[in-house]
Amino acid sequence: MDELVRFGVSISSHLLRQFDQLISGRGYVNRSEAIRDLIRKYLVEHEWERGDKETLGTLTLLYNHHVRELPDRLEHLQHEHYHRIISTMHVHVDEQNCLEVTVLRGKPAEIRELADSILGVKGVKHGQLVMTSKGTELD
Amino acid sequence: MDELVRFGVSISSHLLRQFDQLISGRGYVNRSEAIRDLIRKYLVEHEWERGDKETLGTLTLLYNHHVRELPDRLEHLQHEHYHRIISTMHVHVDEQNCLEVTVLRGKPAEIRELADSILGVKGVKHGQLVMTSKGTELD
Amino acid sequence: MDELVRFGVSISSHLLRQFDQLISGRGYVNRSEAIRDLIRKYLVEHEWERGDKETLGTLTLLYNHHVRELPDRLEHLQHEHYHRIISTMHVHVDEQNCLEVTVLRGKPAEIRELADSILGVKGVKHGQLVMTSKGTELD
Amino acid sequence: MDELVRFGVSISSHLLRQFDQLISGRGYVNRSEAIRDLIRKYLVEHEWERGDKETLGTLTLLYNHHVRELPDRLEHLQHEHYHRIISTMHVHVDEQNCLEVTVLRGKPAEIRELADSILGVKGVKHGQLVMTSKGTELD
Repeated sequence: MDELVRFGVSISSHLLRQFDQLISGRGYVNRSEAIRDLIRKYLVEHEWERGDKETLGTLTLLYNHHVRELPDRLEHLQHEHYHRIISTMHVHVDEQNCLEVTVLRGKPAEIRELADSILGVKGVKHGQLVMTSKGTELD
Repeated sequence: MDELVRFGVSISSHLLRQFDQLISGRGYVNRSEAIRDLIRKYLVEHEWERGDKETLGTLTLLYNHHVRELPDRLEHLQHEHYHRIISTMHVHVDEQNCLEVTVLRGKPAEIRELADSILGVKGVKHGQLVMTSKGTELD
Repeated sequence: MDELVRFGVSISSHLLRQFDQLISGRGYVNRSEAIRDLIRKYLVEHEWERGDKETLGTLTLLYNHHVRELPDRLEHLQHEHYHRIISTMHVHVDEQNCLEVTVLRGKPAEIRELADSILGVKGVKHGQLVMTSKGTELD
Repeated sequence: MDELVRFGVSISSHLLRQFDQLISGRGYVNRSEAIRDLIRKYLVEHEWERGDKETLGTLTLLYNHHVRELPDRLEHLQHEHYHRIISTMHVHVDEQNCLEVTVLRGKPAEIRELADSILGVKGVKHGQLVMTSKGTELD
């Protein structure tokens, strides 16, 4: 990690009080950590809007594994795009429902496209893509 | 407004550089203003999650004013809930499409419910609710 | 509007029951209207992701009009970009807080950039951009 | 799964054409599947707004595992809430960055609260909660 620096924020005492209340309720032990988190979130949103850097995303899928050919179809898609897929975790929710989370890498548009094609598979009940980051720019 | 105070944020020089770049690109003239904006956004999201305070929202509607009874239906809904509706702006997009923005007040659940019933009117093509705040807590 | 056609959707009776319950609670009088709304929302999200067409957005701003130079600064920005700004509605929330909603036109990236530069003005407490559409493609 | 039924949707030919184009680009092989996906997404959003049912969520975390005590702190939190945590997947992004996805169960407010307390741990760079569902209501 880089050297640590310090900068000052001027703020009304009232707004600061509200902020302190909220972050202590969320378990933050100091303001700097909470501020850094807000800054990183802001940077990650920007990274995904610009779209020109390699980044990471996670795709959460809920599906019915009894739907004919679904597991095969998903596995096929994942192998076809193995260079975009880092890892997958599978949870057996009940006799028929599975939750699967896949970590994807690529540029935002590439990740979105692959996620869309997976979400379109028959039997996938719900899915959502989370945009995160490789983190190298967030230290 | 309350008295101004100042607090320090410790951060790596690398993360700060990234932040400075992003905010100057977005027209901020100093860090404090950008940090305060991030703090306020965080507080507003929390206000809507908790749901117990009177707040404000804006509802953006796109609709076809040629659909039979639509303008009457919308006006009727707005009058019925006049105590939740502060004001409405209307834009004529083309011969048939209208954009209407309405400022709503109430508790989050009340605003959401009214917005849902307006969005369900036949002929409304697209709509979205923005959660904002009365601002008294954000100084 | 174009000629009306009809297509069939096959669905489990259980899922359909849940859908019917939800939409009747939201005031829809028939399924077709609810389905068309879901389709239009899906198309608008796609329009904003692709980014190549002229579209509309609304920007909701909450600000303190006592902040020195803020109203001038906002008005200046709006005049400078008058060709992107269709109309503005102003609500006096209390002695110091104003809610302002502005309808913007342009390509998604142009609308976002203008919205960002407005959100960065000192004294703007909260703001959010809603992406909507000109509606011509949504009939 | 329940018995299959069929219902008709009336729609303008123009809107249907746009929808067909979009879904074929996303890999859907028929309209019913795409419509069912839109319906399920709408139901899941509603489930999370109401907040009264047991559901599932996934939390994506990006963190620096070199931050002192961070891995211990995360593990401690997860064990303390083991009844809310189903499973965790870990990806080594580079020498210092880790991506961790955790599947959480509980009522929406319980999942959100646990996610908040994890996101507040010092060294967590970015995180996001995805709201999904147990799926039993989505067949």
